[in-house]
Amino acid sequence: MERVPILKIGDILLVSIQVDMSDQTALALQDDLAERIVDTGSHGVIIDITALDIVDSFVGRMLSTIASISKVLDAETVVVGMRPAVAITLVELGLSLNGIRTALNVERGMELIAAFHAEEHDDHDDDPDFEPTASP
Amino acid sequence: MERVPILKIGDILLVSIQVDMSDQTALALQDDLAERIVDTGSHGVIIDITALDIVDSFVGRMLSTIASISKVLDAETVVVGMRPAVAITLVELGLSLNGIRTALNVERGMELIAAFHAEEHDDHDDDPDFEPTASP
Repeated sequence: MERVPILKIGDILLVSIQVDMSDQTALALQDDLAERIVDTGSHGVIIDITALDIVDSFVGRMLSTIASISKVLDAETVVVGMRPAVAITLVELGLSLNGIRTALNVERGMELIAAFHAEEHDDHDDDPDFEPTASP
Repeated sequence: MERVPILKIGDILLVSIQVDMSDQTALALQDDLAERIVDTGSHGVIIDITALDIVDSFVGRMLSTIASISKVLDAETVVVGMRPAVAITLVELGLSLNGIRTALNVERGMELIAAFHAEEHDDHDDDPDFEPTASP
């Protein structure tokens, strides 16, 4: 069975999907990713699908599952590198990538995750300082 | 024919090799990489071989060729993610990865390229300022 490698770049895990995903490969990837997120404390997962000619319902569901698992582990998932033809087919098939953010390429995906992370941190930082304005 | 995707991260191009390389795939990768280096002005190429169970003479030669092409285009090549078993086999087969730098993982590869680039830039910067010390 082939395992999809997971690369760590800073606070982000990067997965480039190039092989046809079987049930086993998809399950292994979900397991590996969940483990790596916990091990590394990453706050973002970027999944590159440049190499995919088609995203069918199986792959779409796998991406959604990965996004949900990551979310529970406090990591944001961004799918990047979708080809125009893939986007068209997705819409034509009526597949919606539930809970999945997309970006044009890896760099924009990284920006998106950084922005999201900063926003979340701001929210947390604000909490202790939060003082309701007293009405006069 | 499968094409290996090339990801751009900052000034670096990242290639994750996961499929079995045929002659055609290898040639296409060399072409694509050369083109992307020129298009993006990248100064580094990182090739991740985490997914490879074996690096034979064909893959070894391909890596060397990529490194040579990149070098001519002013980009440094670093191979990362080599498995222990692959390293052992390489040595046992007597294959030397000519002109190829290696690093443990993507992050160290990036550091290596950044360090190399900074060094080269220092050299260039020094050139115009270079004044031979006059002997008294």
